[in-house]
Amino acid sequence: MKLIRWGAEGSEKTGVIIADYWYDTSAMGTDYNEAFFANDGLEKLDQFLKDNEGKLPEIDKSERLASPIARPSKIVCIGLNYVDHARETHATIPAEPIIFMKSTTAMVGPNDDIIIPKHSEKTDWEVELAVIIGKKASYVEASEALDYVAGYALHNDVSEREFQIERGGTWDKGKGCDTFAPIGPFLATKDELEDVNNLRLWLNVNGKSMQDGNTKDFIFDVPSVVSYVSQFMTLLPGDVISTGTPAGVGLGFKPPIYLKPGDVVELGIDGLGVSRQQVKAYQKA
Amino acid sequence: MKLIRWGAEGSEKTGVIIADYWYDTSAMGTDYNEAFFANDGLEKLDQFLKDNEGKLPEIDKSERLASPIARPSKIVCIGLNYVDHARETHATIPAEPIIFMKSTTAMVGPNDDIIIPKHSEKTDWEVELAVIIGKKASYVEASEALDYVAGYALHNDVSEREFQIERGGTWDKGKGCDTFAPIGPFLATKDELEDVNNLRLWLNVNGKSMQDGNTKDFIFDVPSVVSYVSQFMTLLPGDVISTGTPAGVGLGFKPPIYLKPGDVVELGIDGLGVSRQQVKAYQKA
Repeated sequence: MKLIRWGAEGSEKTGVIIADYWYDTSAMGTDYNEAFFANDGLEKLDQFLKDNEGKLPEIDKSERLASPIARPSKIVCIGLNYVDHARETHATIPAEPIIFMKSTTAMVGPNDDIIIPKHSEKTDWEVELAVIIGKKASYVEASEALDYVAGYALHNDVSEREFQIERGGTWDKGKGCDTFAPIGPFLATKDELEDVNNLRLWLNVNGKSMQDGNTKDFIFDVPSVVSYVSQFMTLLPGDVISTGTPAGVGLGFKPPIYLKPGDVVELGIDGLGVSRQQVKAYQKA
Repeated sequence: MKLIRWGAEGSEKTGVIIADYWYDTSAMGTDYNEAFFANDGLEKLDQFLKDNEGKLPEIDKSERLASPIARPSKIVCIGLNYVDHARETHATIPAEPIIFMKSTTAMVGPNDDIIIPKHSEKTDWEVELAVIIGKKASYVEASEALDYVAGYALHNDVSEREFQIERGGTWDKGKGCDTFAPIGPFLATKDELEDVNNLRLWLNVNGKSMQDGNTKDFIFDVPSVVSYVSQFMTLLPGDVISTGTPAGVGLGFKPPIYLKPGDVVELGIDGLGVSRQQVKAYQKA
């Protein structure tokens, strides 16, 4: 299944994509949130779709798409998980996964604007495969880790490099600004992807190719990463683990290239769709 | 007001402390969560207490206390915010606040057990003043920052030093283990404290004094910290900012001293009460 959330910010409804049509599933009466995943929501949604075949209201594609999952308890990110990206940032290849966290207030829809924060001159992009947790996971072995995964989504791990690297402290400072986590267009359940560790992922800025990699180049693959994070914190249903980005971020260019108002970022992953963000300057609300 | 949450894990109810008695406020019908703070919950609670003076059910003090706030969207922590603690860990005095994040799944009640994670040999303590945000805060000036604060609570920022420092990546890896954030006994609203930047805070292990500091030794005081964090991420009502710890953590001793099963940690802050945790080894549930 391909799950979407849609509608105006703050009043999102649920839906699914079937054969390129969008259908409203809000009659199910539950958001795609922690309780949904914890209470066999995917199985119930599957049954709901069977019970309502041919009867679901179609959603007009002019509607805004939101993040396909409601705000989770946390977004955990893996740093430097592709060899080529570690090299371009002059970092050592990590011996074990690097973990940092992204404020969940950064989450937006896949085609919402990226707002350059106040005083930012180094806002950068990162196409990433995001893993959505399906059930509570603590001290999970890699061999069973996929049992704890609900599905996958496209994620732009937008990053402010000065805040991240030059302002002291951990990377978290440059990762959690508002709009820095466009997720979607949809959550694909596990069965939708043949091999999550072999997917092309790419990102263009203003139509120019910047990133073009493949998840087969992960240093730590999806089961390893889920298992690893679960050794340090309990993962809840709906939580997000973003698995790192391949080479081609703005920081890696000589001189570096950063986003500016008016830029358009497009990104995609095989089987997980495409998203598109316009870049805007911060304006006081 | 002094707000408490109490009862078994997963079915907590709300309450208040008045003159050393605990009273049940669950008839108000709302948890102390994001929606509570966002919708003038403190004003409504104050009115509720006036309307029900002398009529509220008393809570038996044998009841478990939970964290005085429901799970927030995030716990942001400030690192090395006391000069003496920065020195004991051989760190440079930070030029601007260090930010890291603590998984909200780490939250427990003030007197719940601290569970030493699997494979941990360096679980450490940190008495801290936690700030609880009262309204949505983005790009707030220090001069107005206290308008965005609901109140304060005692927090033990339990930390695994090997995970935090020796395992690659950011500090987050050693900060978010289950039970690593005992908060409470209560949330004190702002008016309960004369000067939040001048409070004694202390921590004992097995009755022996380990930390004994004062928030007047903050490198960055409460308004500065709230303002600073709000430059990098939007703070939501109910969010927690933990403001750092004074000298006397286990890591600072020569040789270092870490928690072991059977240890008892007691900590307190002037006006914010005392909490007490027993240390236990991890056991598979």
